[in-house]
Amino acid sequence: MGLRLWRWAMMVALASAPLGAARADDGYDLWLRYRPVAAPARAALAAQARSLVIPGRSATLDAAAAELRRGLGGMAGVAPPAAATLAPGAILLARPAEARRLGVAVADAPELGREGFRLRGMAWRGGRITLVLANSDLGLLYGAFRLLERIEAGERPDRIDFATAPHLALRMLDHWDNLDGGVERGYAGHSIWDWWHLPDRADPRYTDYARANASIGINGTVLNNVNASAESLSPRYIAKAAALADIFRPYGIKVYLSARFSAPIELGGLKTADPLDPGVRAWWRAKADEIYRAIPDFGGFLVKANSEGQPGPQDYHRSHAEGAAALADAVRPHGGVILYRAFVYAHDNPEDRAKQAYDDFKPLDGRFADNVIVQVKNGPIDFQPREPFHPLFGAMLRTPLMMEVQITKEYLGFATHLVYLGPLFEEVLRSDTSGAGGPSVAQVLERGAGRPGLGGMAGVANIGDDRNWSGSIFDQANWFAFGRLAWDPEASSEAIAREWTAISFTPDPRFVTPVVAMMMGSREAAVNYMTPLGLAHQMATGHHYGPGPWVHDLARPEWNPTYYARADADGIGFDRTATGSNAIAQYAPDLARRLADPRTTPEALLLWFHHLPWSYRLADGETLWEGLVRHYDRGVASVAAMRRQWAALAPYVDPERFALTETYLAIQQREAQWWRDASIAYWRSVSHRPLPANVAPPAHDLDYYESLRFPYAPGHI
Amino acid sequence: MGLRLWRWAMMVALASAPLGAARADDGYDLWLRYRPVAAPARAALAAQARSLVIPGRSATLDAAAAELRRGLGGMAGVAPPAAATLAPGAILLARPAEARRLGVAVADAPELGREGFRLRGMAWRGGRITLVLANSDLGLLYGAFRLLERIEAGERPDRIDFATAPHLALRMLDHWDNLDGGVERGYAGHSIWDWWHLPDRADPRYTDYARANASIGINGTVLNNVNASAESLSPRYIAKAAALADIFRPYGIKVYLSARFSAPIELGGLKTADPLDPGVRAWWRAKADEIYRAIPDFGGFLVKANSEGQPGPQDYHRSHAEGAAALADAVRPHGGVILYRAFVYAHDNPEDRAKQAYDDFKPLDGRFADNVIVQVKNGPIDFQPREPFHPLFGAMLRTPLMMEVQITKEYLGFATHLVYLGPLFEEVLRSDTSGAGGPSVAQVLERGAGRPGLGGMAGVANIGDDRNWSGSIFDQANWFAFGRLAWDPEASSEAIAREWTAISFTPDPRFVTPVVAMMMGSREAAVNYMTPLGLAHQMATGHHYGPGPWVHDLARPEWNPTYYARADADGIGFDRTATGSNAIAQYAPDLARRLADPRTTPEALLLWFHHLPWSYRLADGETLWEGLVRHYDRGVASVAAMRRQWAALAPYVDPERFALTETYLAIQQREAQWWRDASIAYWRSVSHRPLPANVAPPAHDLDYYESLRFPYAPGHI
Repeated sequence: MGLRLWRWAMMVALASAPLGAARADDGYDLWLRYRPVAAPARAALAAQARSLVIPGRSATLDAAAAELRRGLGGMAGVAPPAAATLAPGAILLARPAEARRLGVAVADAPELGREGFRLRGMAWRGGRITLVLANSDLGLLYGAFRLLERIEAGERPDRIDFATAPHLALRMLDHWDNLDGGVERGYAGHSIWDWWHLPDRADPRYTDYARANASIGINGTVLNNVNASAESLSPRYIAKAAALADIFRPYGIKVYLSARFSAPIELGGLKTADPLDPGVRAWWRAKADEIYRAIPDFGGFLVKANSEGQPGPQDYHRSHAEGAAALADAVRPHGGVILYRAFVYAHDNPEDRAKQAYDDFKPLDGRFADNVIVQVKNGPIDFQPREPFHPLFGAMLRTPLMMEVQITKEYLGFATHLVYLGPLFEEVLRSDTSGAGGPSVAQVLERGAGRPGLGGMAGVANIGDDRNWSGSIFDQANWFAFGRLAWDPEASSEAIAREWTAISFTPDPRFVTPVVAMMMGSREAAVNYMTPLGLAHQMATGHHYGPGPWVHDLARPEWNPTYYARADADGIGFDRTATGSNAIAQYAPDLARRLADPRTTPEALLLWFHHLPWSYRLADGETLWEGLVRHYDRGVASVAAMRRQWAALAPYVDPERFALTETYLAIQQREAQWWRDASIAYWRSVSHRPLPANVAPPAHDLDYYESLRFPYAPGHI
Repeated sequence: MGLRLWRWAMMVALASAPLGAARADDGYDLWLRYRPVAAPARAALAAQARSLVIPGRSATLDAAAAELRRGLGGMAGVAPPAAATLAPGAILLARPAEARRLGVAVADAPELGREGFRLRGMAWRGGRITLVLANSDLGLLYGAFRLLERIEAGERPDRIDFATAPHLALRMLDHWDNLDGGVERGYAGHSIWDWWHLPDRADPRYTDYARANASIGINGTVLNNVNASAESLSPRYIAKAAALADIFRPYGIKVYLSARFSAPIELGGLKTADPLDPGVRAWWRAKADEIYRAIPDFGGFLVKANSEGQPGPQDYHRSHAEGAAALADAVRPHGGVILYRAFVYAHDNPEDRAKQAYDDFKPLDGRFADNVIVQVKNGPIDFQPREPFHPLFGAMLRTPLMMEVQITKEYLGFATHLVYLGPLFEEVLRSDTSGAGGPSVAQVLERGAGRPGLGGMAGVANIGDDRNWSGSIFDQANWFAFGRLAWDPEASSEAIAREWTAISFTPDPRFVTPVVAMMMGSREAAVNYMTPLGLAHQMATGHHYGPGPWVHDLARPEWNPTYYARADADGIGFDRTATGSNAIAQYAPDLARRLADPRTTPEALLLWFHHLPWSYRLADGETLWEGLVRHYDRGVASVAAMRRQWAALAPYVDPERFALTETYLAIQQREAQWWRDASIAYWRSVSHRPLPANVAPPAHDLDYYESLRFPYAPGHI
């Protein structure tokens, strides 16, 4: 059966799913659905799943075998028995030497590294076998997951030929989960960590979390919020974290904890948290020893210091490098690392907020301890719908860097807006840090400043205890895409969208093609209806729900949207050239030169770098005012089109996931309109310009939009 | 097939459930499980489910038909078609006149009232039919649920003959759910109300909530916490409540809201909330009109006023009756009621806290508006493991009363202690309010002060967004038992336990008998290891997790456990006789006379009413000190026995529900020991008495127990 027929068979299976299935499809299974394949393809699949041959035994290999049985049981109704020798129809999970011992002619595969794998259907004694080849148990587990995904996507296992290895060593989720169950910037319910009942209760969901992450190559998880409670490091909570680590270990996922810099005071009763104080250093060493006794493969600490009110080394007039070193020394004997966040801006710093991280960290390049990784957000502000790449990626060449992105959509419509973040991640990863042909941000991460074992990506998780994990079905794609891009930051976000859609719904191109088109356009749509042309941080205060471009009265200037847009009767935008904050000087000279001139600045970032008159002419000849309004309208129209498109796809989706998405698209359309109307109402009030011809006026006056209050908006802890 | 064989067939079905069932049994289905019946019984059941005959059509009848199809589909694999005429094997849902029109000889059934029903298997043309008879669509829905439950319990539908009608008109759940998703005293996760996505999103869980409640006869739900936010009454939140009401309506469940007494100020911008102020009265009328436009069958308001810091009429020197009247007048034109809580104690009242509700409300008896129901907690303090019945039940004869009980286990070990509350509810319902042969509390509620349409019970829900709804499997039984007892407050809690166990697990008596024994003993076990012999409120401060008998330094005397136990070197207990607070005078004379003497006071309430020397001789000859210690030991031993018992029942339970219960019993045993050890350590420190012979000393010294801190204990909002 050719690929085309096989895919067709899959579709039939979907359409004819038994009505008797009692459970609605609530999205809990994520992309690991393993629904039955239709009859003809099922027989073909079953014929290639007659036995599992796995030389060796470990918790990780057991997990691989269990996953293969679960997947093949679901898709083909078979439970392939374990076998010691190969026969046609076998699935073999082996290292090269093990495969050769069984008579399979394969060469060593150093190119797969410790975590990569190869999937290969091969002839065997008149039939075919499917080989999963890797150099470690974890590589074999990753391969098992990918094999099942490829089958779900409509491929035949015995014809597969595919190899991949991760480009980044650290592929991590950061949970901003508090010990009371709240999730800062979480839009998918509350924390999945049931801290109260840990370590006694091993919620089956923890295993499913590990399965989902292993399936996309995530290998680290920071359990608690960067705005950390010292209590997370108490003996009681270490025991709880250890219980999770025990569950995650077979899936190759290491546990990390956010460390509150002042924990030596709060938890240890010391008088200081000065990182040069011998008592403080001893406290951290003892604490690390205690943690490693409970969690021998503990990953290390994530630290947010001297930012947004958090304690840090600067409280004691020490540098971030000195602060990081105290913790780095504590975990080094155990092989741990420190993930030290570069997201700093100080209450008393009058400098352009976009410049402060660079100002603080660039001088420290090369001065961090050898097990410290500086974790830099993708852009210089804070996870906006669009930002330029963070200048530290081009400037901190002697320090291993992690890139931190938000998978949760704090500034991108929460869980109810369909915004696929793959293009956002891809845009920054492909950015040319030199402006002269590389390296790209992805390459900077891959190089790890010469220590590639320390390069990585961290995604602020969008996971909560909602049944569907991510708050919406399409937000599952953002978790998935993050994992795939952390594995290979040079991958195509469109290819990833295609893969996710096929395995999460159906490989039918009549569904995949339009859905991928929706997804690929969705981020630009959000940029257009929220913050077009390089605007940023126009969200309402605190919860960041909806528009608030008029807000100007918060205590610190950089808390106000007006700080970022700088709109008045004459024009709009933040001058970050030499006549303004000169933030462009933090970029490489070739790039800075282009950014100095609005004509050579990408129009998508125009107002990020330039303050321009309303009458400024855009590339297409429209004035800036006209173009701005047009972008908002384009964003609203895109959402309307997505909604129509989805409505036409009902035949391909189960009713529950269809309805949830339909409901949320309706909310998104309403809110896109609100963003557009409120923003235009405000810009009009400052520009004193008439609306361009044929443009609909806002539905309400500006007072109305300014009056809206949302005291229980989610995610605002 | 006789009843015995049928039951045996059910068991076989359980034991041989297909291994391929992908989903673990997470308890989401509650007692509405509808798992397949084994083959021989399945055929017999299918033969009695050949068609559904339902004259008439309504959303409620549609729900009944859907439930029957779901249940029979699950148990017998059939989908009985709708039919217009009767044939053998039919299930008929009909009013008496409708049944007669179809040729079934039944008399009118006024004894069923508006909500009761009869289930009857009858001969029909050489075969048998199953009749569900009622006088309303809702009665038929209730009957459909009960029919399915009886089948789950192992009965044959065609042999059934059963009739019941509710004794109380108002059978309500009170959700102490906040708009931010927190649940005050909730131990089952967070609120199931996804306020943020309402009214757009109709979470399928809302329908399952309605199904579960309708299946046990609950007909009202207060959506928000009695410690209410005024925002609940804003237009945005009224629309959200209306969306829930629309979902609940077919299931006969009315929506109520807790009203913050000061809402006219906070929401309406008025200067006062004085209930005699014309502007305030007009505001409440307009607000009620607004709500009824959105929710035509809105139930009314629940009010907590002048208690624990809440605003109320006394802020304006008005009585509770005057306060209630302002709201009562607003909802009366629409048929609404006011549920006015008698749970009051004031910061500045030096009187015994147990007396304050009576002092405030007894003088108002007969002075409340005709659509006001006073909602009285089961006991005079606050949902303790054991309290005497509230004296208002014997004293407020001209006012309809609701009894409020806690289904959530604030003071009974949260969700991890297996404590079946049926016996607690039954104990208070059966209490003789006169001390001279009745009426019982149940009868007081049933009489409704001559307006039986206003009698009722309210249970503070134990429902959260945990997958199993109630935090543990056995806490589902407390929800179930509350519903059954609100339907018939004279029912047997043991019979209810038997029914719940049979339909939630298996009717196999080898399982049911020991489990019911565990359940029936579990409440007394908790009393013994927490607060034996009439002690109360010895829980740690705020979160009420674990013991805190030593706490004495809180701002108000009645916040301290020492206030309630009054232990010193001489003795222990609260003197509520004439030599003390004389709270006994709030009870009927015959009862008060007996309570005046420790010898005629039930030993289970001894220290509630009397302060006695440590050397006081209990009925069995032990000293009070020896008896106290013995009770703690007995409590711990009971839990150990429950745990052993459960371990032996593994063959009868699916692995996931078995494991969760096993884990929680281990926690319960550890915490029972902690309660016992900490309590004895403290009592010993004040009594200066040696431990009785053969009694194990506490595992730690008192300092250790006093040092324990639980900053993230659940339920403490």
